[in-house]
Amino acid sequence: MITDHLLKFEQKTDDTDIPDHFYEEMPDVVNELLESCLTGQCFDHVDSIPIITLESVAQIIQQARRIIFPGYFSQTVLAPSNLEYCLRQETTELLKRISRHIRLSFQHDCLRYNQYCSQCNDRSHKKALEFIRTLPKLRDLLATDVRAGFRGDPAAKSCDEVIFSYPGLFAITVYRLAHELYLLSVPLLPRMMTEYAHSLTGIDIHPGAKIGESFFIDHGTGVVVGETTEIGNRVRIYQGVTLGALSIPSETVDDFRNKKRHPTIEDDVIIYSNATLLGGETVIGARSVIGGNVWITESVPADTKVILKRPELVYSRNNHK
Amino acid sequence: MITDHLLKFEQKTDDTDIPDHFYEEMPDVVNELLESCLTGQCFDHVDSIPIITLESVAQIIQQARRIIFPGYFSQTVLAPSNLEYCLRQETTELLKRISRHIRLSFQHDCLRYNQYCSQCNDRSHKKALEFIRTLPKLRDLLATDVRAGFRGDPAAKSCDEVIFSYPGLFAITVYRLAHELYLLSVPLLPRMMTEYAHSLTGIDIHPGAKIGESFFIDHGTGVVVGETTEIGNRVRIYQGVTLGALSIPSETVDDFRNKKRHPTIEDDVIIYSNATLLGGETVIGARSVIGGNVWITESVPADTKVILKRPELVYSRNNHK
Amino acid sequence: MITDHLLKFEQKTDDTDIPDHFYEEMPDVVNELLESCLTGQCFDHVDSIPIITLESVAQIIQQARRIIFPGYFSQTVLAPSNLEYCLRQETTELLKRISRHIRLSFQHDCLRYNQYCSQCNDRSHKKALEFIRTLPKLRDLLATDVRAGFRGDPAAKSCDEVIFSYPGLFAITVYRLAHELYLLSVPLLPRMMTEYAHSLTGIDIHPGAKIGESFFIDHGTGVVVGETTEIGNRVRIYQGVTLGALSIPSETVDDFRNKKRHPTIEDDVIIYSNATLLGGETVIGARSVIGGNVWITESVPADTKVILKRPELVYSRNNHK
Repeated sequence: MITDHLLKFEQKTDDTDIPDHFYEEMPDVVNELLESCLTGQCFDHVDSIPIITLESVAQIIQQARRIIFPGYFSQTVLAPSNLEYCLRQETTELLKRISRHIRLSFQHDCLRYNQYCSQCNDRSHKKALEFIRTLPKLRDLLATDVRAGFRGDPAAKSCDEVIFSYPGLFAITVYRLAHELYLLSVPLLPRMMTEYAHSLTGIDIHPGAKIGESFFIDHGTGVVVGETTEIGNRVRIYQGVTLGALSIPSETVDDFRNKKRHPTIEDDVIIYSNATLLGGETVIGARSVIGGNVWITESVPADTKVILKRPELVYSRNNHK
Repeated sequence: MITDHLLKFEQKTDDTDIPDHFYEEMPDVVNELLESCLTGQCFDHVDSIPIITLESVAQIIQQARRIIFPGYFSQTVLAPSNLEYCLRQETTELLKRISRHIRLSFQHDCLRYNQYCSQCNDRSHKKALEFIRTLPKLRDLLATDVRAGFRGDPAAKSCDEVIFSYPGLFAITVYRLAHELYLLSVPLLPRMMTEYAHSLTGIDIHPGAKIGESFFIDHGTGVVVGETTEIGNRVRIYQGVTLGALSIPSETVDDFRNKKRHPTIEDDVIIYSNATLLGGETVIGARSVIGGNVWITESVPADTKVILKRPELVYSRNNHK
Repeated sequence: MITDHLLKFEQKTDDTDIPDHFYEEMPDVVNELLESCLTGQCFDHVDSIPIITLESVAQIIQQARRIIFPGYFSQTVLAPSNLEYCLRQETTELLKRISRHIRLSFQHDCLRYNQYCSQCNDRSHKKALEFIRTLPKLRDLLATDVRAGFRGDPAAKSCDEVIFSYPGLFAITVYRLAHELYLLSVPLLPRMMTEYAHSLTGIDIHPGAKIGESFFIDHGTGVVVGETTEIGNRVRIYQGVTLGALSIPSETVDDFRNKKRHPTIEDDVIIYSNATLLGGETVIGARSVIGGNVWITESVPADTKVILKRPELVYSRNNHK
């Protein structure tokens, strides 16, 4: 009989045993499952390299965040006397951790294509070091995002509140880290990182997007920024904004995989809540403002304000109550 | 004085003690709380069966996922030599775990109606076995969903990326598991499972919905699929799509509890982002395409494309800066 | 060489060591990071008070929830005989925990303004006691929210299902707790609490909003309720509803920080999915109904139903397949 060691609280109650003949049916179920592994109709990851767990993705993000915003997310109080020691320890650990996960990502793809690459290990060390070298630059860049958040939201009480609690800043931090790995052609890991941020914030930024400095996303739930989007400096967007692709018929998906499918947003643009901007040739000119709920599939010149024509509303007496 | 054993990091700082007379006020607060338990005006779960925790809901989902996608979410590397052993162990454990939680769900309802059902235990064993028997079928079905994800999204690099990181696939996996429990008339647990997925993905699929094979949800944040929705095969939907009910005046809610209130979507339909489709008699015919932001409360014939009439936009010079 | 003690599963695989000369580059990266700490261009939290962690915010919320809904979220089964003991223990622990975190919040602000307040400790004890005293009132208020959820949703099977699994109720619970701390002028902590709920539910309610009894949010993903919103009794809102501010040019953000920027919603109003209501002078009169997708920046009288004029849809034959 199998006991559940993990669930302490389950042991607190007296479990009434399942009759033995129920367990006797398990081999049949298992055989059915095994057969579908043999036919290749279903998906399995057997006889393969170790997987990247969501927990380790979270640890990479948390450690990078402790390096970029020293003291904000550390459980030990940082002092000028221990700052250098702590930063050195964290960056060295992160080098090791990211190197291992870059290697797992490369090996995963090598196996997939049946081209086992003997240099996966060396490549991953080099890519990891290149990634670590970008951290000071990311620290500068993210400082501009923090200031943009405080400047852009009248409800923000301080820059610290932005760092501690704004989901937009968290999503942008993870995107900026993942984007560096994307530029280094690391598979799997960058997308797992941004999807981790997506699950916590509702903000879905593809690691392939290019985003300038001082970027601010307010509230953020439902935001989608597609793979080939380009965003300039000092851009501000609100919840529910989609920077997406035009519709694609299924049969031609493969033709689109490496094309620019998502819009370009120039400097100082503001896009209000739930606006949808689609298409790889759509360019929103600098300093333009896109109103809430607007649906755009064509370019907008610089210094332009685009709003929905005041929609006709129908007013009537409510007799429900 | 009560010490907090759980929070190690709190002990790192010297806590200045709260003066004793502050603690002397606690009994008054507790008495007020107790009184509201006696009047029945408020809600408590005292003298009741053990609760189902969110942690155990998460464990059920994770274990079922390890069985359906072997090797993708296991921390031990699976080889052909240990695959059968691992699957047998996981399915046997899941039988026990799900049986316990089905029993808790039944007992919860029995107590609620003051009709203590002596057969809760036997019923829960049988239902648990029926649930386990559906796993091979769910494995086949979910393989079609994975392929639909890869085919439907030009940003997907591989089927593995879909399995590892797509929130849509996670939400569909949890829905398919919960739907089987819903069909077995298990209360509480199925909804707790889909709400767990909702909290991680922003995708809210009621376990009662009926959904065919090869279903793909892209991005997904804000998607709502109501209890009596029916969805055919090879349907694709995007973020923010609502398949919902028409408005219901409060006084008649009870009349609506068991009626079909949500739309029917036939095979091969595509519904773009933020479209809203409402009503139990609304049928979207096969191979139709519903454009983004469209609001529909009536049926659409097969092979039809419905888009918003190009909304009138107002362009003006932006003088803000 | 640094070993990673935390990640047991990483030790299961044979890690190929990173060559030593890779580690020799770490000091340069660290120096760059340290320099940006000295210039003040970037953000750090060095030589400061201990931070409030997300884990401790979660613990405060969970403990308060166990007090407000006794037995629903406790791993020990509550009986009438141990109820008083458990409630007393939980409230006493919460007094201590919340007091510590209120103090950290005050100290954080004191240091920020270089006005170290010697009374932070005393103030935090007093504020913590005031907060604990509101728990019986919040218990009554949240019981009205639970009933509103059951009444408002035909898919709800019982009030217990609402308490166990509805994200709207969780978000409202956290908001009501955070709002009391906001009224006590506690910085940082209230916003961290509501952002924690935001990350789990997609519902973003600012702790400053004023919300009456029997409030129900269905589905909820994408809901935004701004800082100066006022909501009456028995109001019901759906997913994607924004109660927001009109657009604000960056240069005048500071002028808006303490003004009423968000709408007022009177008693018994219903607001359907994805409606957007903006502006501090916008008042939605009692018993009015706002339809889905409606965009409103002006007041609506009482007893009025406002829907979009049936939008013109364009139907065409779909030739994609």
